[in-house]
Amino acid sequence: MKVQLALDRMTIDEAKSITEEVYDYIDIIEVGTSLIKDYGKKSISSMRDEFKDKLILADIKTCDEGEYEFKAAYEAGADIATVMGTSPFETIEICYKVSKEYKKHMMIDLMETDDRKIQQLKTCEDAILFLHLPKDSENKSLLDMFQSKKQLFKDVKRIAVGGGISEKVMPGITLINPEIVVVGSFITKSKNLSAAAREVRKVLENRR
Amino acid sequence: MKVQLALDRMTIDEAKSITEEVYDYIDIIEVGTSLIKDYGKKSISSMRDEFKDKLILADIKTCDEGEYEFKAAYEAGADIATVMGTSPFETIEICYKVSKEYKKHMMIDLMETDDRKIQQLKTCEDAILFLHLPKDSENKSLLDMFQSKKQLFKDVKRIAVGGGISEKVMPGITLINPEIVVVGSFITKSKNLSAAAREVRKVLENRR
Repeated sequence: MKVQLALDRMTIDEAKSITEEVYDYIDIIEVGTSLIKDYGKKSISSMRDEFKDKLILADIKTCDEGEYEFKAAYEAGADIATVMGTSPFETIEICYKVSKEYKKHMMIDLMETDDRKIQQLKTCEDAILFLHLPKDSENKSLLDMFQSKKQLFKDVKRIAVGGGISEKVMPGITLINPEIVVVGSFITKSKNLSAAAREVRKVLENRR
Repeated sequence: MKVQLALDRMTIDEAKSITEEVYDYIDIIEVGTSLIKDYGKKSISSMRDEFKDKLILADIKTCDEGEYEFKAAYEAGADIATVMGTSPFETIEICYKVSKEYKKHMMIDLMETDDRKIQQLKTCEDAILFLHLPKDSENKSLLDMFQSKKQLFKDVKRIAVGGGISEKVMPGITLINPEIVVVGSFITKSKNLSAAAREVRKVLENRR
């Protein structure tokens, strides 16, 4: 299981400094949507230049213009770029094609995506399907959401989960056993950044 | 009917220079999603500083974190900000609330939004509902799309349409009679920018 650190609502310098503090406990650095919309693709390339040994995910949340946006993200240094599951299927197909051309990864954010569409998305076999509890609806439960879709997900190769992840819900998450767990403010808003990241990592290690 | 010029896949300087050339024929300057994802909110504030007398739309295509993204767009100088109709309804409600607080406008991009959700969105009475033919599916027809949803739209106060708009399809668009027509590459990729913009404006004036 990989830990993805979501960096949001901060400056690029703050993102760098937080990443440095928790570097040993994370596998993927997520340049959050807010960083991209605030600072542009410079936010991706700055993190790429600074942290050469980690995977970089650009949470660009593509909705349209798949080719342009995915190429821009990969060329700025991203290893993984995100597209919304609610986008037109044509857009998602184009993003998938670009990810293959660049030998990079595509993550599909399943926020608000209905089961019929998820079924269709499974044709993108190497895509990472991201079960995402939206920031604006954090009273719901990720594990409940997953349980309700268990049948649909049973033949999905790559799964990520995220949204409101904390130490408290981590044991539930390990039951899902995804490839990637996306953790944001539980680490970034913690008083002791490295202790919080270590705690997350510890729960995962115990699982192994 | 207002003409909204969509500026995409170019530098901020190119966006300024195109806007200057067609200034007299347009009403709203759209800072396109690609400009925002490439250059960040600086793309919004630069256009705001340069063109004080026009409305500025920031096509931020919010999917989550409605409060943060809408405040950022308005504070950078946008008069109108966009949210995806496929976002969680909680997100759209938050964006609407922020738009009211700031005395600004919200546009909801209806790309891939189903009729049940559109019905729900109509509770945001002052929102501009944007019937949007995606860039990645431009073989479809905007007029056909509108005709199929005519009943649903009959009590909507504010409508915008866009996607693949050219002089050729404009007469069909005038039948819809929206508040806003979004025109992108028909103007921005034209050899003679001001002639193209004037042509669009002429079709609309004849309609009045």
